Amino acid sequence: MDLRRAGAQDKAHVLAEALPYIREFQAATVVIKYGGHAMDKPELADLFAQDVVLMRLVGMNPVVVHGGGPQITDLMARLGKQAEFVDGLRVTDAETVDIVRMALVGKVNREVVASLNRHGSYAVGLSGEDAGLIAATQRDERLGFVGDVDHIDPAILERLIREELIPVVATIGMGATGQAYNVNADTVAGAIAAALGAEKLVYLTDVAGVYANFPDENSLVSRIDADGLERLVADGCASEGMIPKLRSCIHALRHGVGRAHILDGRVPHALLLEFFTREGIGTMVGSDA
Amino acid sequence: MDLRRAGAQDKAHVLAEALPYIREFQAATVVIKYGGHAMDKPELADLFAQDVVLMRLVGMNPVVVHGGGPQITDLMARLGKQAEFVDGLRVTDAETVDIVRMALVGKVNREVVASLNRHGSYAVGLSGEDAGLIAATQRDERLGFVGDVDHIDPAILERLIREELIPVVATIGMGATGQAYNVNADTVAGAIAAALGAEKLVYLTDVAGVYANFPDENSLVSRIDADGLERLVADGCASEGMIPKLRSCIHALRHGVGRAHILDGRVPHALLLEFFTREGIGTMVGSDA
Amino acid sequence: MDLRRAGAQDKAHVLAEALPYIREFQAATVVIKYGGHAMDKPELADLFAQDVVLMRLVGMNPVVVHGGGPQITDLMARLGKQAEFVDGLRVTDAETVDIVRMALVGKVNREVVASLNRHGSYAVGLSGEDAGLIAATQRDERLGFVGDVDHIDPAILERLIREELIPVVATIGMGATGQAYNVNADTVAGAIAAALGAEKLVYLTDVAGVYANFPDENSLVSRIDADGLERLVADGCASEGMIPKLRSCIHALRHGVGRAHILDGRVPHALLLEFFTREGIGTMVGSDA
Amino acid sequence: MDLRRAGAQDKAHVLAEALPYIREFQAATVVIKYGGHAMDKPELADLFAQDVVLMRLVGMNPVVVHGGGPQITDLMARLGKQAEFVDGLRVTDAETVDIVRMALVGKVNREVVASLNRHGSYAVGLSGEDAGLIAATQRDERLGFVGDVDHIDPAILERLIREELIPVVATIGMGATGQAYNVNADTVAGAIAAALGAEKLVYLTDVAGVYANFPDENSLVSRIDADGLERLVADGCASEGMIPKLRSCIHALRHGVGRAHILDGRVPHALLLEFFTREGIGTMVGSDA
Amino acid sequence: MDLRRAGAQDKAHVLAEALPYIREFQAATVVIKYGGHAMDKPELADLFAQDVVLMRLVGMNPVVVHGGGPQITDLMARLGKQAEFVDGLRVTDAETVDIVRMALVGKVNREVVASLNRHGSYAVGLSGEDAGLIAATQRDERLGFVGDVDHIDPAILERLIREELIPVVATIGMGATGQAYNVNADTVAGAIAAALGAEKLVYLTDVAGVYANFPDENSLVSRIDADGLERLVADGCASEGMIPKLRSCIHALRHGVGRAHILDGRVPHALLLEFFTREGIGTMVGSDA
Amino acid sequence: MDLRRAGAQDKAHVLAEALPYIREFQAATVVIKYGGHAMDKPELADLFAQDVVLMRLVGMNPVVVHGGGPQITDLMARLGKQAEFVDGLRVTDAETVDIVRMALVGKVNREVVASLNRHGSYAVGLSGEDAGLIAATQRDERLGFVGDVDHIDPAILERLIREELIPVVATIGMGATGQAYNVNADTVAGAIAAALGAEKLVYLTDVAGVYANFPDENSLVSRIDADGLERLVADGCASEGMIPKLRSCIHALRHGVGRAHILDGRVPHALLLEFFTREGIGTMVGSDA
Repeated sequence: MDLRRAGAQDKAHVLAEALPYIREFQAATVVIKYGGHAMDKPELADLFAQDVVLMRLVGMNPVVVHGGGPQITDLMARLGKQAEFVDGLRVTDAETVDIVRMALVGKVNREVVASLNRHGSYAVGLSGEDAGLIAATQRDERLGFVGDVDHIDPAILERLIREELIPVVATIGMGATGQAYNVNADTVAGAIAAALGAEKLVYLTDVAGVYANFPDENSLVSRIDADGLERLVADGCASEGMIPKLRSCIHALRHGVGRAHILDGRVPHALLLEFFTREGIGTMVGSDA
Repeated sequence: MDLRRAGAQDKAHVLAEALPYIREFQAATVVIKYGGHAMDKPELADLFAQDVVLMRLVGMNPVVVHGGGPQITDLMARLGKQAEFVDGLRVTDAETVDIVRMALVGKVNREVVASLNRHGSYAVGLSGEDAGLIAATQRDERLGFVGDVDHIDPAILERLIREELIPVVATIGMGATGQAYNVNADTVAGAIAAALGAEKLVYLTDVAGVYANFPDENSLVSRIDADGLERLVADGCASEGMIPKLRSCIHALRHGVGRAHILDGRVPHALLLEFFTREGIGTMVGSDA
Repeated sequence: MDLRRAGAQDKAHVLAEALPYIREFQAATVVIKYGGHAMDKPELADLFAQDVVLMRLVGMNPVVVHGGGPQITDLMARLGKQAEFVDGLRVTDAETVDIVRMALVGKVNREVVASLNRHGSYAVGLSGEDAGLIAATQRDERLGFVGDVDHIDPAILERLIREELIPVVATIGMGATGQAYNVNADTVAGAIAAALGAEKLVYLTDVAGVYANFPDENSLVSRIDADGLERLVADGCASEGMIPKLRSCIHALRHGVGRAHILDGRVPHALLLEFFTREGIGTMVGSDA
Repeated sequence: MDLRRAGAQDKAHVLAEALPYIREFQAATVVIKYGGHAMDKPELADLFAQDVVLMRLVGMNPVVVHGGGPQITDLMARLGKQAEFVDGLRVTDAETVDIVRMALVGKVNREVVASLNRHGSYAVGLSGEDAGLIAATQRDERLGFVGDVDHIDPAILERLIREELIPVVATIGMGATGQAYNVNADTVAGAIAAALGAEKLVYLTDVAGVYANFPDENSLVSRIDADGLERLVADGCASEGMIPKLRSCIHALRHGVGRAHILDGRVPHALLLEFFTREGIGTMVGSDA
Repeated sequence: MDLRRAGAQDKAHVLAEALPYIREFQAATVVIKYGGHAMDKPELADLFAQDVVLMRLVGMNPVVVHGGGPQITDLMARLGKQAEFVDGLRVTDAETVDIVRMALVGKVNREVVASLNRHGSYAVGLSGEDAGLIAATQRDERLGFVGDVDHIDPAILERLIREELIPVVATIGMGATGQAYNVNADTVAGAIAAALGAEKLVYLTDVAGVYANFPDENSLVSRIDADGLERLVADGCASEGMIPKLRSCIHALRHGVGRAHILDGRVPHALLLEFFTREGIGTMVGSDA
Repeated sequence: MDLRRAGAQDKAHVLAEALPYIREFQAATVVIKYGGHAMDKPELADLFAQDVVLMRLVGMNPVVVHGGGPQITDLMARLGKQAEFVDGLRVTDAETVDIVRMALVGKVNREVVASLNRHGSYAVGLSGEDAGLIAATQRDERLGFVGDVDHIDPAILERLIREELIPVVATIGMGATGQAYNVNADTVAGAIAAALGAEKLVYLTDVAGVYANFPDENSLVSRIDADGLERLVADGCASEGMIPKLRSCIHALRHGVGRAHILDGRVPHALLLEFFTREGIGTMVGSDA
């Protein structure tokens, strides 16, 4: 048997190894909060697109949710818009929410969709305003158009999933009168996972996972449950940026989602590694940990 | 019978008068090119939204297609982007196509969707990049990312129509490698109508209709056919801005679309008037005129 | 803007005003007890037909139920059939039930179906004998073939509704051995509404509505609930002819029907006025009044 | 083995013998023109009902079509209505068509439906006016409301068949303006069979079948084809009453119906004998005879 | 009326007599444990096949379950395989289970399927190994590959029933690692009936039915309930061979099966007699006896 | 990045490389003739099972067809059955066809199904006798029950495919009277592929592929078309054992099958290598080669 064949055999072996995982995840709905380096770095973005399309092709139902802080900041700067603050929180006036929408729906969402569709015409971009997906309410009058999730109507997502498409959601919510709100993407991801009764909720982040004692690098947790996460938050052991993700995980797990994963989005093919090989990465959160 | 009742009777009579029209248009797919004052003026925009949602509710399948020249120009100005020209045509470089996308998908499309959804959660915003809807090719290398329609894949529209939703399409096309292109909205409207086998194609414009001898106001045509349109274009009797609309009508009518209408979008409720009352407005183009 | 246009604008405005009502009643099943002047006077009958077909076209599911006392009396007279009475109640012998059936199924039902079908082929005539729709039992041996509703099998109605047709039911019931019974149409309407879980039950009558203190014309009630109706009946404040309607309303509202309406069928387009304009007419009965 | 068992064995054997016939006719649509003694004599009518319900239960799709000449004549007599004639043909004025409708739809149709439904709730009575089933045109102005079949819309029949119900059609047609017409039932049966693409068309008559040389009793034909029937009619060998049936058979066979049968309806269980035993009765007409 | 006609009339009468039974059993699922003389004697086997195909054609859903002791014994003898015993029970080693499978799946199952398919292509042979139908566990290590039913996955049966096919099940079970087990066919029949929620469970045996006091021939029971069966077994009144059947009946009746029948498979057309004539045979076991 | 991670990365890379192939073969039906070493050697058989289940899981529709010459020979030997020959061809008498059936359906088919179902409950064993799948006719009276394919009824396969199951077909055919025939498995595979309109037909053999000049090892052909295959057969360049495979390929390609592959079944994971990696193996036969 020649060398070329030997390499081919290795490949065949890897594919066969994925079999039990593919079987286990048939028809599983997976909500993926996308962001950080995995989204910003073009080479990682393309690997992400491959992973998500592959998940779709082997019978999973991926749903991508994204925000886009840096892109908003960048567009505001280019438009010479000054940020205002109230009690240290950024005020989102009418002009700002317009800019947020252009950045998220008109730029980030489009780039994610285009990136996925280079591997097959499966992705459909959505704003939370479409078909009543994200109903939002104002958080605090002084902050302007910053919204909280009032409720999720998952019908449009369920329709697209049934048609074997990949929904990509930009997290703009809509108020009762049609007003747009900027809503936190970490929170939306958990709320959508709960509304869909998703099997899995995944956060792609720029850290290796959850630390039991942030920022101690030796305290990386590979497995924890919702109660454990709650203690971490209560005890002040979680980093600032991680807190909305953790709260959203807890919410989702307490509302029917099977499992949550905090993955390191800087690792190439992080999703494939987690779902289709023995080598899981990051932190897995279950109700049964 | 008191006065209040008398007024109510008139209302009931108007509704009953609409009966034969509603029956005639059951399940008819109508592609509406939206633009001009009907889109720019908030009070007209809300009447447009009412009309389209009513069409949906009485059993028609409206599909809205829009561009957004003024909004693009405006965003470019705000971003300090200088326009370049080649042979008098605007060059769309990578940065410009990005701005176009933000303006069309992130602003105009969102505003149309929000406006419709104030009357019921039916509208879903789409870019031509979603699920392979508009495949585009480069028109001229020197013009950059200006695209021509290569072909339309109407599957995503058909799915949304089947679910009784209202697709709202921003006319960004996607090249083979995932590159975004700015595509003419008038042309896209006709191509989508043809791909869907739509019963009707409607252009909302800022003029009263087609003139046999532009700009002679007495030459307004109320009924014409595709051959007639072709002669108007050939004889140089059509206004500059009308030509892409007319060409697109001709294409659509020659590819299975039943009828085209050039309506005056400055008239409140132009769509309801045309479809549900005896008082048709603008120019009707049929193959049987 | 010329005068013709102004009138057209008014029409468009009336249509647009109907939008929220059409949206609210999408897919609502409405059982309409048809009778009185609205049925006997040809010009009102045609307006009724327009109203019902329009309801169907805008997405409601109307079901028409009718009796036909005057037509029965008329046919009996023409056939020289003498009425017999027991304790003041008319005896329905075998020959009489045959005449009742000819009048209701062979004449009234046919005229209602024909009248509706002049506006589109939606109506299908049914007798309660079809496919087990109305199972009846004998009320009193001495009265002969006068039946009470034993139970309703709504399957045939549900099938026709699913096919977007308009069932028109003549209220002949069928006994266990196949015997036909004459059943009270007011009672059947409520029983069918309950069996279908209808959103609405409507009685078209020859009075302005329910009076709190019949026949005091100033005591017209515009809104009441099932308990209120029960008190009216108990207190002897309701007219003789109204009592079976009221009892049937109470039954229906207590078995899942959302709302009942007692409308004045002498008013042209009474159904359109009630359902599609702000000017409701007659008495509305809710569980939440 | 005791005697009781022996008799039971015979029964089981008869059932088993029906197996190949039941298999052959699975899902076959059979249009049955019902009339004559089979309809008029109560004991034969009940056997007919058993046969038709059994056909439905073993997977065939029976459709019953009937007129009712004697019942019309009877009702006219009871109503003291004088018959008028033009060139020897009965004039059907407005009052007469009303009586026809009462007799056919209100009496005969009801009795057929009730008779069938004594054996299971499968039958649904229809007039040709329902849902556009029989569109008719006036034959001759002087004859009044005597109609010819303009066309058949079989959609309502197909819907009921799909739901495994038994349509029973009274042959009243509807003109363009909603006017009722009396249409010949023999003709309608063939037209409906053709419109449905029925496998079989059956006439239940009061004769033993088709005679090659009427009224020679020895000339009974057991098998013939459409050309043969045409020659019989052309050669004047057919009886007066048989001619519309034969013409209708020829039409149906030339428009896709597989086979026609002229059966003797005076024979008890004529349908079961023809379809489920080796002992076929009457005349079979095929395109391949 | 001639003699031939008279005989034909009797046949028609028998068919009509079956009508109420056919109606009663529409869509009823009937699990039939097939075995004994009814399977071994070719002429009885063909009558059985006719009965089962007729049940399918008139709308019932028969499922056939069989073992094949004599055929196993025969094949073992031909292959010179010596039987081993532990505590008086036959040991099923790897070679034996292979022989069992060849006999049941490769011979008996094939013959049953071929016999049924001579009357129409409805039968599909299955082993309990197909699509996870029978999951088995080892009963006793010393007995080798003798299995107990762990659970039934009726999905493949439900699919075939939905397609109007007749599943024929050979009772080989599959262990967790893919190992084949020989499972008692009487037990499997009851477990499948329970898993399907069957209306009926039938055992074809070589005795006249259940005896209250075996072997007293005068103690044949025509009707009993599950409690009664349990007492018979507890009191030692049941024959050795009948016990697994009775236990399986009790299990099925306590898990949702409507009725069980112990029939004498030596009687020709035993199934038709039981289901379609007044002359029921054998013992009927109900929960309501 | 540690070493473990590096290996994991390689795995993820292999999976991602399969993406375009998985996309290309979505919903493709692939008929696989299984046999030779790939079937006889347990370790290869398990790899084959993994490959087929993986194909199913990633959206392909595999159908497995097998014979089993060695197993037949072995069972005949064990049963002491003497082979008879006519003109050098083996005679299949009634006893032999029974043995063939036990070996193929009762042993080989079971082992293939069990092997597949160890990786998920997808496989369902079928004999060509099930539901009329393979209709056969006798080839030559003197050879006994050796059959030729008369026609294939693919309905049962299409049903199982629609339910996402994996049919495994033993190539026993059924004659008109229910007689079993032994049919050549290579021929059946091509006939089934043609009847299903399969995208691909695959032969797993014990050679490296097709040789242009058998047995010259340097003449291995990697790509050829149907005409080419025909010339090879005509020119006597094909090996004896290869001829039925090649004829069957030619037949299938001329009846709508897209492509055929002759693969070396001795190579582990031959199917995965061919379908999901750049390293195709064996000979590919297309109409467009």
